[in-house]
Amino acid sequence: MSPQSRPPQDAPTEDTVAALGEFGLIRAVTENRVQPEATLLGPGDDAAVVAAPDGRVVASTDVLVQGVHFRLDWSSPEQVGRKAIAVNLADIAAMGASPTSVLVGLACPGETPSATLTELADGMWAEATRAGIGVVGGDVVHADQLVVSVAALGDLGGRPPVTRSGARPGDILAVCGRLGWAAAGLAVLGRGFRSPVSVVNAQRAPEPPYAAGPAAAVAGATSMIDVSDGLLADLGHIASASGVGLDIHTERLRVDQKLVEVGAALGADPRHWVLTGGEDHALAATFPPFADLPQGWHRIGSVLMPDTAVTIDGRPAENGAGWEHWR
Amino acid sequence: MSPQSRPPQDAPTEDTVAALGEFGLIRAVTENRVQPEATLLGPGDDAAVVAAPDGRVVASTDVLVQGVHFRLDWSSPEQVGRKAIAVNLADIAAMGASPTSVLVGLACPGETPSATLTELADGMWAEATRAGIGVVGGDVVHADQLVVSVAALGDLGGRPPVTRSGARPGDILAVCGRLGWAAAGLAVLGRGFRSPVSVVNAQRAPEPPYAAGPAAAVAGATSMIDVSDGLLADLGHIASASGVGLDIHTERLRVDQKLVEVGAALGADPRHWVLTGGEDHALAATFPPFADLPQGWHRIGSVLMPDTAVTIDGRPAENGAGWEHWR
Repeated sequence: MSPQSRPPQDAPTEDTVAALGEFGLIRAVTENRVQPEATLLGPGDDAAVVAAPDGRVVASTDVLVQGVHFRLDWSSPEQVGRKAIAVNLADIAAMGASPTSVLVGLACPGETPSATLTELADGMWAEATRAGIGVVGGDVVHADQLVVSVAALGDLGGRPPVTRSGARPGDILAVCGRLGWAAAGLAVLGRGFRSPVSVVNAQRAPEPPYAAGPAAAVAGATSMIDVSDGLLADLGHIASASGVGLDIHTERLRVDQKLVEVGAALGADPRHWVLTGGEDHALAATFPPFADLPQGWHRIGSVLMPDTAVTIDGRPAENGAGWEHWR
Repeated sequence: MSPQSRPPQDAPTEDTVAALGEFGLIRAVTENRVQPEATLLGPGDDAAVVAAPDGRVVASTDVLVQGVHFRLDWSSPEQVGRKAIAVNLADIAAMGASPTSVLVGLACPGETPSATLTELADGMWAEATRAGIGVVGGDVVHADQLVVSVAALGDLGGRPPVTRSGARPGDILAVCGRLGWAAAGLAVLGRGFRSPVSVVNAQRAPEPPYAAGPAAAVAGATSMIDVSDGLLADLGHIASASGVGLDIHTERLRVDQKLVEVGAALGADPRHWVLTGGEDHALAATFPPFADLPQGWHRIGSVLMPDTAVTIDGRPAENGAGWEHWR
């Protein structure tokens, strides 16, 4: 699409997006990439065509802004690319669907080094490949700030979607994936440290357990969400959508040894990271009382009678408000 | 998703996005909106679910940036919202598909008036409703600049997608929709005028002929594109993708009377707008030699032997480079 006014025309220096140009950039991020079978028509036309064998398509979008969702002094462009894909695919998995593809909208200043964007694309493709999906299309435009907008698609495989609203009293509350690691990494980075690298990398690029979403759906999950804003906050969404109470049993809540160590070093309570830290994109779900939990899932609590609150060992959870933009 | 750092905490003044908050904003733009039948699960969960009866889904994304793709002193937020949806749906139509839904990613400063975003949403919903589709999901985040990222989905209705690469020598070259109006409107606005309102409004919010895309596919269109960068530039994409030449017959090219008048007033050649103006999102397509063109389509030229060039009355077209970001 043509802009209404030309962006400021700095003399394009070598190795910047401005020098590469829009079409050069598109070539750089799409050429020689391997598309999976589900990509029936990839980048290069007005739109892509992706297989949707179920006859329904699951769709979600998340936008990442430099300085808000990532910092290029904390994360490499490759890690930002992986994160941008991961946070979107986690939303697809949380519906019980298997991701099939992503579209990427990229806005950035003309003086952005072209290497930044090719590394960002490398990270996107790395995570897409890990998930078995393709980057099937996109748009690159001029803006004052680096903004990465991703839309993800997925397939339900004939199953009903697992929403936030199906939890029933008596159900089991369970999680799959890391909790608190990204928050610990953020605390480390915030103090100016760069290690331990395991928690710092968890912050830079999460590794959501994509396959655990469809597996939970097959096992009969009654509700599911991806933990993006913190366990308490996201369970709050299930509680209010389902009209139930959710009680976390702290003796079942795993606080990984690495978090205990980092907490001790920083004088912080690692349980706080586990309960309120977002950005690991673990999955939380409820299952019928006698369900066999799929591999990787473990029980952390119970679904109680309707009162739409999240409790910890039966007591009201504090600090569960989670993150809200602009507040 | 939780940001890594809180955005600058200006005291939120009343009637700003900051005062409304993320969830208040989401409510304001999603509540009491009517979803079409194809929206099986709308906003409010981790992802939406949309009907994809064809078993394939057509998907595309376009990003609009304030100051680059729109100016709020030239366009109302409602017009920007309509435009953001229209440019995306035009890409779906250009594949011969019927749009089914859009996802919207919205990034803006906290001091943005909340009315700006609700009017933007009104415009999006107005255009979505005109096209018979739903806004099924989205994301709202903090950024320094207003960025509207839309991803659109569509259904092929059992037909093969109409790509840019299927034009064959001997085919008819045809268009449907306005050409040059948005460019004339931009010229008017650029001189500080606000009328004639018809061309100015064409610039502010295009009205692509969505139904003409699937109709062209049914009529056997061999290639198609939406005219977003200008007729010459976009025909150039068909020419190179199909490996053919495309010749425009100027005696067939309609220059609407309104453009003649505006051209006379501004001392500009209206044919230049028709040939190089983008943003009207007309559709251009090629059809087999004896095809009956669907309603609204008219022939403007011919597909010639392979030489991957666009010509005008057999002579090389000048000024056909079109728009390229950062160049």
